[in-house]
Amino acid sequence: MSQSLENRKYAPIGVFDSGVGGLTVAREIMRQLPKERIIYFGDTARVPYGSKSRETITRYSRQIIHFLQTKGVKAIVVACNTASAFALETLRPELSIPIIGVVEPGARVAARTSKNGKIGVIGTEGTIGSQIYTTTIRSYAPGAEVIGKPCPLFVPLVEEGWLKDPITVEIARRYLDSFLKSDIDTLIMGCTHYPLLRSTLRGILGDRVNLVNPAYETARCLKELLEEQDLVNDGAGEETGLQYQFYVSDAAEKFKNFANSILPCEIEEAQLIQIEE
Amino acid sequence: MSQSLENRKYAPIGVFDSGVGGLTVAREIMRQLPKERIIYFGDTARVPYGSKSRETITRYSRQIIHFLQTKGVKAIVVACNTASAFALETLRPELSIPIIGVVEPGARVAARTSKNGKIGVIGTEGTIGSQIYTTTIRSYAPGAEVIGKPCPLFVPLVEEGWLKDPITVEIARRYLDSFLKSDIDTLIMGCTHYPLLRSTLRGILGDRVNLVNPAYETARCLKELLEEQDLVNDGAGEETGLQYQFYVSDAAEKFKNFANSILPCEIEEAQLIQIEE
Repeated sequence: MSQSLENRKYAPIGVFDSGVGGLTVAREIMRQLPKERIIYFGDTARVPYGSKSRETITRYSRQIIHFLQTKGVKAIVVACNTASAFALETLRPELSIPIIGVVEPGARVAARTSKNGKIGVIGTEGTIGSQIYTTTIRSYAPGAEVIGKPCPLFVPLVEEGWLKDPITVEIARRYLDSFLKSDIDTLIMGCTHYPLLRSTLRGILGDRVNLVNPAYETARCLKELLEEQDLVNDGAGEETGLQYQFYVSDAAEKFKNFANSILPCEIEEAQLIQIEE
Repeated sequence: MSQSLENRKYAPIGVFDSGVGGLTVAREIMRQLPKERIIYFGDTARVPYGSKSRETITRYSRQIIHFLQTKGVKAIVVACNTASAFALETLRPELSIPIIGVVEPGARVAARTSKNGKIGVIGTEGTIGSQIYTTTIRSYAPGAEVIGKPCPLFVPLVEEGWLKDPITVEIARRYLDSFLKSDIDTLIMGCTHYPLLRSTLRGILGDRVNLVNPAYETARCLKELLEEQDLVNDGAGEETGLQYQFYVSDAAEKFKNFANSILPCEIEEAQLIQIEE
Protein backbone atom coordinates (compact mmCIF):
# COMPACT_ATOMS: atom_id res chain seq x y z
CA MET A 1 0.00 0.00 0.00
CA SER A 2 1.78 3.14 -1.19
CA GLN A 3 0.80 6.34 0.60
CA SER A 4 2.29 9.81 0.72
CA LEU A 5 3.53 10.88 4.15
CA GLU A 6 0.70 13.40 4.35
CA ASN A 7 -1.91 10.68 3.78
CA ARG A 8 -0.22 8.21 6.12
CA LYS A 9 -0.91 10.60 8.99
CA TYR A 10 -4.61 10.00 8.58
CA ALA A 11 -4.36 6.24 8.36
CA PRO A 12 -5.64 4.25 11.34
CA ILE A 13 -3.64 2.48 14.01
CA GLY A 14 -4.04 -1.30 14.07
CA VAL A 15 -4.49 -2.78 17.55
CA PHE A 16 -4.89 -6.48 18.25
CA ASP A 17 -5.33 -8.91 21.10
CA SER A 18 -6.49 -12.47 21.70
CA GLY A 19 -9.90 -11.10 22.68
CA VAL A 20 -11.30 -8.33 24.83
CA GLY A 21 -8.27 -7.69 27.06
CA GLY A 22 -6.60 -5.39 24.55
CA LEU A 23 -9.53 -3.02 24.84
CA THR A 24 -7.82 -1.65 27.96
CA VAL A 25 -4.99 -0.61 25.61
CA ALA A 26 -7.38 0.76 22.97
CA ARG A 27 -9.06 2.76 25.76
CA GLU A 28 -5.77 4.39 26.74
CA ILE A 29 -4.99 5.23 23.09
CA MET A 30 -8.45 6.84 22.78
CA ARG A 31 -7.72 8.93 25.89
CA GLN A 32 -4.17 9.98 25.09
CA LEU A 33 -4.51 10.28 21.29
CA PRO A 34 -8.15 11.29 20.81
CA LYS A 35 -7.81 12.19 17.12
CA GLU A 36 -6.36 8.87 16.03
CA ARG A 37 -8.42 6.30 14.17
CA ILE A 38 -8.25 2.70 15.39
CA ILE A 39 -8.85 -0.67 13.73
CA TYR A 40 -9.14 -3.22 16.54
CA PHE A 41 -8.99 -6.97 16.03
CA GLY A 42 -9.88 -9.44 18.82
CA ASP A 43 -9.12 -13.11 18.12
CA THR A 44 -12.15 -14.37 20.04
CA ALA A 45 -12.27 -17.67 18.09
CA ARG A 46 -8.88 -18.71 19.44
CA VAL A 47 -8.75 -16.90 22.78
CA PRO A 48 -6.93 -17.32 25.17
CA TYR A 49 -3.31 -17.04 24.03
CA GLY A 50 -1.79 -17.29 27.51
CA SER A 51 -1.54 -21.07 27.68
CA LYS A 52 -0.41 -21.67 24.08
CA SER A 53 3.04 -22.07 22.52
CA ARG A 54 5.38 -19.56 20.91
CA GLU A 55 4.95 -21.15 17.46
CA THR A 56 1.16 -21.04 17.58
CA ILE A 57 1.01 -17.46 18.88
CA THR A 58 3.47 -16.33 16.21
CA ARG A 59 1.37 -17.95 13.46
CA TYR A 60 -1.83 -16.36 14.78
CA SER A 61 -0.18 -12.94 15.12
CA ARG A 62 1.18 -13.09 11.57
CA GLN A 63 -2.33 -13.77 10.21
CA ILE A 64 -3.76 -10.85 12.15
CA ILE A 65 -1.02 -8.42 11.11
CA HIS A 66 -1.65 -9.39 7.51
CA PHE A 67 -5.35 -8.57 7.99
CA LEU A 68 -4.58 -5.20 9.62
CA GLN A 69 -2.27 -4.31 6.74
CA THR A 70 -5.11 -4.87 4.27
CA LYS A 71 -6.85 -2.06 6.18
CA GLY A 72 -3.97 0.33 5.46
CA VAL A 73 -2.84 0.89 9.06
CA LYS A 74 0.12 3.22 9.68
CA ALA A 75 1.34 1.44 12.82
CA ILE A 76 0.48 -1.67 14.81
CA VAL A 77 0.08 -2.11 18.56
CA VAL A 78 0.29 -5.68 19.86
CA ALA A 79 -2.14 -5.17 22.75
CA CYS A 80 -1.52 -8.61 24.22
CA ASN A 81 1.32 -9.49 26.56
CA THR A 82 1.64 -13.08 25.38
CA ALA A 83 1.82 -12.08 21.71
CA SER A 84 4.26 -9.28 22.59
CA ALA A 85 6.40 -11.82 24.46
CA PHE A 86 6.32 -14.56 21.84
CA ALA A 87 5.83 -12.98 18.43
CA LEU A 88 6.95 -9.34 18.32
CA GLU A 89 10.68 -9.74 17.71
CA THR A 90 10.09 -12.41 15.05
CA LEU A 91 7.51 -10.34 13.17
CA ARG A 92 9.07 -6.86 13.36
CA PRO A 93 11.64 -7.49 10.58
CA GLU A 94 8.82 -8.69 8.28
CA LEU A 95 7.10 -5.29 8.42
CA SER A 96 7.68 -1.90 6.83
CA ILE A 97 5.50 -0.01 9.35
CA PRO A 98 6.24 0.53 13.05
CA ILE A 99 5.01 -2.10 15.50
CA ILE A 100 5.09 -1.89 19.29
CA GLY A 101 4.06 -4.28 22.03
CA VAL A 102 2.94 -3.81 25.61
CA VAL A 103 5.94 -5.41 27.33
CA GLU A 104 8.69 -2.91 26.54
CA PRO A 105 6.80 0.21 27.72
CA GLY A 106 5.71 -1.44 30.99
CA ALA A 107 9.14 -2.93 31.68
CA ARG A 108 10.89 0.37 31.00
CA VAL A 109 8.78 2.42 33.37
CA ALA A 110 9.06 -0.24 36.08
CA ALA A 111 12.87 -0.30 35.74
CA ARG A 112 13.04 3.50 35.90
CA THR A 113 10.68 4.07 38.81
CA SER A 114 11.49 1.18 41.18
CA LYS A 115 13.56 2.50 44.07
CA ASN A 116 14.77 -0.78 45.55
CA GLY A 117 15.11 -2.67 42.24
CA LYS A 118 12.69 -5.39 43.36
CA ILE A 119 9.94 -5.76 40.78
CA GLY A 120 7.06 -8.23 40.62
CA VAL A 121 5.32 -9.29 37.40
CA ILE A 122 1.99 -11.08 37.08
CA GLY A 123 0.75 -12.48 33.78
CA THR A 124 -0.29 -15.58 31.86
CA GLU A 125 1.75 -18.77 31.93
CA GLY A 126 3.11 -17.92 28.48
CA THR A 127 4.24 -14.41 29.39
CA ILE A 128 5.82 -15.39 32.71
CA GLY A 129 7.41 -18.56 31.29
CA SER A 130 9.00 -16.53 28.47
CA GLN A 131 10.96 -14.44 31.03
CA ILE A 132 10.43 -11.49 28.67
CA TYR A 133 9.79 -8.99 31.47
CA THR A 134 12.91 -10.09 33.36
CA THR A 135 15.08 -9.73 30.26
CA THR A 136 13.60 -6.37 29.27
CA ILE A 137 13.69 -4.87 32.77
CA ARG A 138 17.33 -5.92 33.15
CA SER A 139 18.25 -4.23 29.86
CA TYR A 140 17.30 -0.95 31.62
CA ALA A 141 18.27 -1.89 35.19
CA PRO A 142 20.89 -4.65 35.07
CA GLY A 143 20.84 -5.38 38.81
CA ALA A 144 17.05 -5.59 39.15
CA GLU A 145 15.49 -8.55 40.92
CA VAL A 146 12.38 -9.63 39.00
CA ILE A 147 9.86 -12.05 40.50
CA GLY A 148 7.27 -13.48 38.10
CA LYS A 149 4.00 -15.21 39.00
CA PRO A 150 1.51 -16.69 36.52
CA CYS A 151 -2.13 -16.06 37.51
CA PRO A 152 -4.16 -18.22 35.11
CA LEU A 153 -7.50 -17.73 36.90
CA PHE A 154 -7.52 -13.93 36.63
CA VAL A 155 -8.67 -13.85 32.99
CA PRO A 156 -11.68 -16.16 33.51
CA LEU A 157 -12.56 -14.27 36.72
CA VAL A 158 -12.58 -10.97 34.80
CA GLU A 159 -14.64 -12.54 32.03
CA GLU A 160 -17.07 -13.87 34.66
CA GLY A 161 -17.38 -10.23 35.83
CA TRP A 162 -16.29 -11.01 39.42
CA LEU A 163 -13.99 -8.01 39.60
CA LYS A 164 -14.25 -7.23 43.33
CA ASP A 165 -15.81 -10.49 44.50
CA PRO A 166 -14.62 -12.07 47.78
CA ILE A 167 -13.61 -15.18 45.80
CA THR A 168 -11.48 -13.06 43.48
CA VAL A 169 -9.91 -11.38 46.51
CA GLU A 170 -9.11 -14.81 48.00
CA ILE A 171 -7.56 -16.08 44.75
CA ALA A 172 -5.61 -12.84 44.31
CA ARG A 173 -4.36 -13.13 47.88
CA ARG A 174 -3.02 -16.59 47.12
CA TYR A 175 -1.36 -15.55 43.88
CA LEU A 176 0.16 -12.44 45.45
CA ASP A 177 1.30 -14.21 48.63
CA SER A 178 4.94 -14.52 47.50
CA PHE A 179 5.02 -10.78 46.77
CA LEU A 180 3.73 -9.94 50.25
CA LYS A 181 6.62 -11.92 51.72
CA SER A 182 9.23 -10.20 49.54
CA ASP A 183 9.62 -6.42 49.60
CA ILE A 184 8.88 -5.51 45.97
CA ASP A 185 8.04 -1.83 45.52
CA THR A 186 6.63 -2.23 41.97
CA LEU A 187 4.22 -4.71 40.38
CA ILE A 188 3.62 -4.90 36.64
CA MET A 189 0.09 -5.97 35.66
CA GLY A 190 1.47 -7.99 32.75
CA CYS A 191 -1.81 -9.06 31.12
CA THR A 192 -4.27 -6.66 29.54
CA HIS A 193 -7.19 -8.01 31.59
CA TYR A 194 -5.53 -7.27 34.91
CA PRO A 195 -6.05 -3.49 35.11
CA LEU A 196 -9.74 -4.36 35.55
CA LEU A 197 -8.70 -6.01 38.85
CA ARG A 198 -6.68 -2.99 39.94
CA SER A 199 -8.70 -2.13 43.04
CA THR A 200 -8.65 -5.75 44.24
CA LEU A 201 -4.87 -5.90 43.75
CA ARG A 202 -4.44 -2.51 45.43
CA GLY A 203 -6.51 -3.69 48.42
CA ILE A 204 -4.18 -6.64 48.97
CA LEU A 205 -0.85 -4.97 48.27
CA GLY A 206 -1.57 -1.65 50.00
CA ASP A 207 -0.03 1.68 48.98
CA ARG A 208 3.57 0.59 49.40
CA VAL A 209 3.63 -1.12 45.97
CA ASN A 210 3.43 0.91 42.75
CA LEU A 211 1.13 -0.79 40.21
CA VAL A 212 2.35 -0.42 36.62
CA ASN A 213 -0.31 -0.57 33.91
CA PRO A 214 1.38 -1.40 30.58
CA ALA A 215 -1.73 -0.25 28.69
CA TYR A 216 -1.17 3.31 29.88
CA GLU A 217 2.57 3.19 29.19
CA THR A 218 1.99 1.70 25.73
CA ALA A 219 -0.32 4.55 24.69
CA ARG A 220 2.35 7.02 25.88
CA CYS A 221 5.00 5.17 23.93
CA LEU A 222 2.79 5.12 20.82
CA LYS A 223 2.35 8.88 21.13
CA GLU A 224 6.12 9.41 21.24
CA LEU A 225 6.62 7.13 18.27
CA LEU A 226 4.01 8.93 16.13
CA GLU A 227 5.53 12.31 17.05
CA GLU A 228 9.04 11.19 16.16
CA GLN A 229 7.93 9.89 12.78
CA ASP A 230 5.62 12.84 12.08
CA LEU A 231 2.63 10.50 11.93
CA VAL A 232 0.31 12.15 14.48
CA ASN A 233 -3.21 12.60 13.13
CA ASP A 234 -4.03 16.30 13.46
CA GLY A 235 -7.71 15.69 12.69
CA ALA A 236 -7.53 17.77 9.49
CA GLY A 237 -7.97 14.79 7.12
CA GLU A 238 -11.18 13.91 5.32
CA GLU A 239 -13.83 12.02 7.26
CA THR A 240 -13.57 8.43 6.11
CA GLY A 241 -16.02 6.25 7.96
CA LEU A 242 -16.08 5.43 11.63
CA GLN A 243 -13.18 6.56 13.81
CA TYR A 244 -13.10 3.24 15.65
CA GLN A 245 -13.69 -0.07 13.91
CA PHE A 246 -13.80 -3.46 15.59
CA TYR A 247 -13.30 -6.89 14.06
CA VAL A 248 -13.44 -10.26 15.79
CA SER A 249 -13.05 -13.90 14.78
CA ASP A 250 -16.08 -15.06 16.81
CA ALA A 251 -18.96 -14.08 19.12
CA ALA A 252 -19.28 -10.48 17.88
CA GLU A 253 -22.30 -9.60 20.04
CA LYS A 254 -20.65 -10.70 23.29
CA PHE A 255 -17.52 -8.75 22.32
CA LYS A 256 -19.56 -5.63 21.63
CA ASN A 257 -21.27 -5.83 25.02
CA PHE A 258 -17.97 -6.23 26.85
CA ALA A 259 -16.44 -3.37 24.82
CA ASN A 260 -19.33 -1.07 25.66
CA SER A 261 -18.89 -1.83 29.36
CA ILE A 262 -15.28 -0.60 29.41
CA LEU A 263 -14.77 1.88 26.53
CA PRO A 264 -15.45 5.61 26.81
CA CYS A 265 -17.48 5.49 23.59
CA GLU A 266 -20.43 3.40 22.45
CA ILE A 267 -19.60 0.95 19.68
CA GLU A 268 -22.35 -0.04 17.30
CA GLU A 269 -20.88 -3.10 15.69
CA ALA A 270 -18.08 -5.62 15.82
CA GLN A 271 -17.63 -7.30 12.45
CA LEU A 272 -17.01 -11.01 12.24
CA ILE A 273 -14.22 -12.22 9.95
CA GLN A 274 -12.48 -15.56 9.37
CA ILE A 275 -8.87 -14.89 10.24
CA GLU A 276 -7.49 -18.33 9.36
CA GLU A 277 -7.89 -17.76 5.65
CA MET B 1 -11.41 -45.45 2.53
CA SER B 2 -12.76 -48.82 1.48
CA GLN B 3 -12.38 -51.60 4.02
CA SER B 4 -13.89 -55.05 4.31
CA LEU B 5 -16.11 -55.52 7.34
CA GLU B 6 -13.54 -57.89 8.84
CA ASN B 7 -10.82 -55.24 8.58
CA ARG B 8 -13.07 -52.46 9.81
CA LYS B 9 -13.35 -54.25 13.17
CA TYR B 10 -9.68 -53.66 13.77
CA ALA B 11 -9.74 -50.01 12.80
CA PRO B 12 -9.34 -47.47 15.61
CA ILE B 13 -12.00 -45.30 17.19
CA GLY B 14 -11.53 -41.56 16.69
CA VAL B 15 -12.09 -39.46 19.80
CA PHE B 16 -11.81 -35.68 19.90
CA ASP B 17 -12.17 -32.78 22.28
CA SER B 18 -11.13 -29.13 22.54
CA GLY B 19 -8.20 -30.21 24.73
CA VAL B 20 -7.61 -32.51 27.66
CA GLY B 21 -11.18 -32.82 28.96
CA GLY B 22 -12.11 -35.57 26.52
CA LEU B 23 -9.46 -37.77 28.10
CA THR B 24 -12.07 -38.60 30.76
CA VAL B 25 -14.11 -40.12 27.91
CA ALA B 26 -11.08 -41.90 26.39
CA ARG B 27 -10.37 -43.29 29.87
CA GLU B 28 -13.85 -44.82 30.08
CA ILE B 29 -13.50 -46.33 26.60
CA MET B 30 -10.17 -47.87 27.65
CA ARG B 31 -11.86 -49.39 30.71
CA GLN B 32 -15.04 -50.64 29.07
CA LEU B 33 -13.59 -51.62 25.68
CA PRO B 34 -10.02 -52.61 26.51
CA LYS B 35 -9.26 -54.17 23.11
CA GLU B 36 -10.22 -51.13 21.04
CA ARG B 37 -7.60 -48.92 19.46
CA ILE B 38 -8.03 -45.14 19.90
CA ILE B 39 -6.87 -42.14 17.91
CA TYR B 40 -7.35 -39.09 20.16
CA PHE B 41 -7.21 -35.50 18.97
CA GLY B 42 -7.11 -32.55 21.41
CA ASP B 43 -7.52 -29.08 19.86
CA THR B 44 -5.17 -27.41 22.33
CA ALA B 45 -4.37 -24.53 19.95
CA ARG B 46 -7.99 -23.34 20.01
CA VAL B 47 -9.16 -24.53 23.44
CA PRO B 48 -11.60 -23.73 25.05
CA TYR B 49 -14.71 -24.29 22.93
CA GLY B 50 -17.20 -23.46 25.70
CA SER B 51 -17.37 -19.71 25.10
CA LYS B 52 -17.36 -19.82 21.27
CA SER B 53 -20.17 -19.79 18.70
CA ARG B 54 -21.99 -22.60 16.93
CA GLU B 55 -20.49 -21.67 13.54
CA THR B 56 -16.93 -21.65 14.83
CA ILE B 57 -17.28 -24.93 16.74
CA THR B 58 -18.86 -26.59 13.70
CA ARG B 59 -15.99 -25.45 11.47
CA TYR B 60 -13.39 -26.68 13.95
CA SER B 61 -15.17 -30.03 14.40
CA ARG B 62 -15.38 -30.57 10.65
CA GLN B 63 -11.61 -30.03 10.29
CA ILE B 64 -10.93 -32.53 13.08
CA ILE B 65 -13.29 -35.18 11.71
CA HIS B 66 -11.57 -34.84 8.36
CA PHE B 67 -8.23 -35.47 10.08
CA LEU B 68 -9.54 -38.51 11.97
CA GLN B 69 -10.90 -39.98 8.75
CA THR B 70 -7.44 -39.81 7.19
CA LYS B 71 -6.44 -42.18 10.01
CA GLY B 72 -9.07 -44.73 8.91
CA VAL B 73 -11.24 -44.66 12.03
CA LYS B 74 -14.32 -46.92 12.14
CA ALA B 75 -16.37 -44.61 14.39
CA ILE B 76 -16.05 -41.16 15.96
CA VAL B 77 -16.78 -40.05 19.51
CA VAL B 78 -17.25 -36.31 20.00
CA ALA B 79 -15.83 -36.22 23.53
CA CYS B 80 -16.75 -32.59 24.11
CA ASN B 81 -20.12 -31.36 25.29
CA THR B 82 -19.96 -28.07 23.44
CA ALA B 83 -19.07 -29.73 20.12
CA SER B 84 -21.75 -32.37 20.74
CA ALA B 85 -24.27 -29.59 21.39
CA PHE B 86 -23.33 -27.38 18.45
CA ALA B 87 -21.88 -29.54 15.69
CA LEU B 88 -23.04 -33.15 15.91
CA GLU B 89 -26.39 -32.95 14.15
CA THR B 90 -24.95 -30.81 11.36
CA LEU B 91 -22.01 -33.12 10.75
CA ARG B 92 -23.65 -36.56 11.08
CA PRO B 93 -25.23 -36.49 7.58
CA GLU B 94 -21.83 -35.65 6.07
CA LEU B 95 -20.33 -38.93 7.34
CA SER B 96 -20.52 -42.57 6.29
CA ILE B 97 -19.26 -43.92 9.63
CA PRO B 98 -21.10 -43.79 12.97
CA ILE B 99 -20.56 -40.74 15.17
CA ILE B 100 -21.79 -40.26 18.73
CA GLY B 101 -21.55 -37.38 21.18
CA VAL B 102 -21.56 -37.18 24.96
CA VAL B 103 -24.88 -35.37 25.36
CA GLU B 104 -27.35 -38.05 24.25
CA PRO B 105 -26.00 -40.86 26.50
CA GLY B 106 -25.87 -38.62 29.58
CA ALA B 107 -29.30 -37.10 28.94
CA ARG B 108 -30.88 -40.52 28.37
CA VAL B 109 -29.65 -42.05 31.59
CA ALA B 110 -30.64 -38.95 33.57
CA ALA B 111 -34.15 -39.04 32.09
CA ARG B 112 -34.48 -42.75 32.89
CA THR B 113 -33.11 -42.72 36.43
CA SER B 114 -34.52 -39.48 37.87
CA LYS B 115 -37.38 -40.29 40.22
CA ASN B 116 -38.89 -36.82 40.63
CA GLY B 117 -38.15 -35.58 37.08
CA LYS B 118 -36.10 -32.63 38.36
CA ILE B 119 -32.70 -32.68 36.70
CA GLY B 120 -29.84 -30.21 36.97
CA VAL B 121 -27.19 -29.72 34.28
CA ILE B 122 -23.86 -27.94 34.67
CA GLY B 123 -21.64 -27.13 31.68
CA THR B 124 -19.98 -24.40 29.65
CA GLU B 125 -21.83 -21.29 28.52
CA GLY B 126 -22.13 -22.81 25.02
CA THR B 127 -23.60 -26.12 26.19
CA ILE B 128 -26.07 -24.59 28.64
CA GLY B 129 -27.06 -21.77 26.26
CA SER B 130 -27.81 -24.30 23.51
CA GLN B 131 -30.49 -25.96 25.70
CA ILE B 132 -29.38 -29.26 24.19
CA TYR B 133 -29.68 -31.19 27.46
CA THR B 134 -33.18 -29.86 28.08
CA THR B 135 -34.33 -30.82 24.60
CA THR B 136 -32.73 -34.26 24.72
CA ILE B 137 -33.92 -35.11 28.24
CA ARG B 138 -37.48 -34.10 27.31
CA SER B 139 -37.39 -36.38 24.27
CA TYR B 140 -37.13 -39.25 26.79
CA ALA B 141 -39.10 -37.72 29.67
CA PRO B 142 -41.47 -35.08 28.29
CA GLY B 143 -42.51 -33.69 31.67
CA ALA B 144 -38.99 -33.32 33.08
CA GLU B 145 -37.96 -30.05 34.66
CA VAL B 146 -34.38 -29.26 33.61
CA ILE B 147 -32.35 -26.54 35.32
CA GLY B 148 -29.11 -25.52 33.60
CA LYS B 149 -26.23 -23.56 35.09
CA PRO B 150 -23.06 -22.51 33.25
CA CYS B 151 -19.91 -22.85 35.39
CA PRO B 152 -17.19 -21.12 33.36
CA LEU B 153 -14.56 -21.18 36.13
CA PHE B 154 -14.56 -24.97 36.57
CA VAL B 155 -12.38 -25.68 33.52
CA PRO B 156 -9.61 -23.24 34.49
CA LEU B 157 -9.79 -24.49 38.10
CA VAL B 158 -9.28 -28.08 36.92
CA GLU B 159 -6.45 -26.98 34.65
CA GLU B 160 -4.86 -25.13 37.60
CA GLY B 161 -5.03 -28.47 39.45
CA TRP B 162 -7.12 -27.09 42.34
CA LEU B 163 -9.48 -30.06 42.37
CA LYS B 164 -10.34 -30.14 46.09
CA ASP B 165 -9.11 -26.69 47.04
CA PRO B 166 -11.19 -24.57 49.48
CA ILE B 167 -11.46 -21.90 46.76
CA THR B 168 -12.88 -24.46 44.34
CA VAL B 169 -15.33 -25.60 47.01
CA GLU B 170 -16.44 -22.00 47.53
CA ILE B 171 -16.90 -21.37 43.79
CA ALA B 172 -18.73 -24.68 43.39
CA ARG B 173 -20.98 -23.79 46.32
CA ARG B 174 -21.93 -20.57 44.57
CA TYR B 175 -22.58 -22.22 41.21
CA LEU B 176 -24.59 -25.03 42.82
CA ASP B 177 -26.57 -22.74 45.12
CA SER B 178 -29.69 -22.72 42.92
CA PHE B 179 -29.68 -26.55 42.88
CA LEU B 180 -29.50 -26.71 46.68
CA LYS B 181 -32.64 -24.56 46.83
CA SER B 182 -34.53 -26.70 44.32
CA ASP B 183 -34.99 -30.42 44.94
CA ILE B 184 -33.26 -31.96 41.93
CA ASP B 185 -32.43 -35.63 42.42
CA THR B 186 -30.02 -35.86 39.44
CA LEU B 187 -27.16 -33.65 38.23
CA ILE B 188 -25.46 -34.13 34.87
CA MET B 189 -21.80 -33.16 34.82
CA GLY B 190 -22.15 -31.74 31.31
CA CYS B 191 -18.52 -30.90 30.59
CA THR B 192 -15.77 -33.48 30.27
CA HIS B 193 -13.55 -31.71 32.81
CA TYR B 194 -16.15 -31.87 35.57
CA PRO B 195 -15.84 -35.54 36.61
CA LEU B 196 -12.42 -34.51 37.95
CA LEU B 197 -14.33 -32.32 40.44
CA ARG B 198 -16.68 -35.15 41.39
CA SER B 199 -15.71 -35.38 45.06
CA THR B 200 -16.00 -31.60 45.52
CA LEU B 201 -19.46 -31.64 43.91
CA ARG B 202 -20.47 -34.67 45.96
CA GLY B 203 -19.36 -32.92 49.17
CA ILE B 204 -21.66 -29.98 48.45
CA LEU B 205 -24.69 -31.85 47.11
CA GLY B 206 -24.61 -34.77 49.54
CA ASP B 207 -25.86 -38.26 48.73
CA ARG B 208 -29.37 -37.18 47.83
CA VAL B 209 -28.40 -36.15 44.31
CA ASN B 210 -27.28 -38.72 41.73
CA LEU B 211 -24.29 -37.45 39.72
CA VAL B 212 -24.39 -38.49 36.05
CA ASN B 213 -21.04 -38.77 34.29
CA PRO B 214 -21.65 -38.60 30.51
CA ALA B 215 -18.15 -39.98 29.87
CA TYR B 216 -19.13 -43.29 31.46
CA GLU B 217 -22.49 -43.41 29.66
CA THR B 218 -20.87 -42.55 26.33
CA ALA B 219 -18.44 -45.47 26.57
CA ARG B 220 -21.40 -47.77 27.33
CA CYS B 221 -23.30 -46.37 24.38
CA LEU B 222 -20.26 -46.82 22.11
CA LYS B 223 -20.03 -50.46 23.21
CA GLU B 224 -23.69 -51.06 22.29
CA LEU B 225 -23.21 -49.37 18.94
CA LEU B 226 -20.14 -51.44 18.05
CA GLU B 227 -21.95 -54.62 19.07
CA GLU B 228 -25.00 -53.76 16.97
CA GLN B 229 -22.87 -53.09 13.91
CA ASP B 230 -20.57 -56.07 14.50
CA LEU B 231 -17.62 -53.72 14.82
CA VAL B 232 -16.20 -54.82 18.19
CA ASN B 233 -12.46 -55.41 18.09
CA ASP B 234 -11.88 -58.97 19.30
CA GLY B 235 -8.14 -58.44 19.61
CA ALA B 236 -7.38 -61.05 16.91
CA GLY B 237 -6.17 -58.56 14.31
CA GLU B 238 -2.51 -57.95 13.42
CA GLU B 239 -0.52 -55.68 15.70
CA THR B 240 -0.32 -52.37 13.86
CA GLY B 241 1.52 -49.81 15.93
CA LEU B 242 0.48 -48.33 19.25
CA GLN B 243 -2.98 -49.12 20.61
CA TYR B 244 -3.51 -45.50 21.71
CA GLN B 245 -2.30 -42.57 19.66
CA PHE B 246 -2.60 -38.92 20.65
CA TYR B 247 -2.52 -35.84 18.44
CA VAL B 248 -2.80 -32.21 19.50
CA SER B 249 -2.75 -28.82 17.77
CA ASP B 250 -0.44 -27.22 20.38
CA ALA B 251 1.60 -27.71 23.57
CA ALA B 252 2.15 -31.46 23.17
CA GLU B 253 4.36 -31.87 26.25
CA LYS B 254 1.85 -30.24 28.59
CA PHE B 255 -0.91 -32.40 27.12
CA LYS B 256 1.16 -35.54 27.64
CA ASN B 257 1.77 -34.68 31.29
CA PHE B 258 -1.92 -34.06 31.95
CA ALA B 259 -2.86 -37.28 30.11
CA ASN B 260 -0.42 -39.29 32.18
CA SER B 261 -1.92 -37.89 35.36
CA ILE B 262 -5.41 -39.19 34.55
CA LEU B 263 -5.13 -42.16 32.15
CA PRO B 264 -4.68 -45.76 33.30
CA CYS B 265 -1.75 -46.19 30.88
CA GLU B 266 1.47 -44.27 30.30
CA ILE B 267 1.57 -42.38 27.02
CA GLU B 268 4.94 -41.76 25.43
CA GLU B 269 4.12 -39.10 22.93
CA ALA B 270 1.48 -36.65 21.76
CA GLN B 271 2.12 -35.63 18.16
CA LEU B 272 1.72 -32.04 17.10
CA ILE B 273 -0.23 -31.32 13.91
CA GLN B 274 -1.60 -28.19 12.23
CA ILE B 275 -5.32 -28.76 12.09
CA GLU B 276 -6.25 -25.58 10.22
CA GLU B 277 -4.73 -26.78 6.98
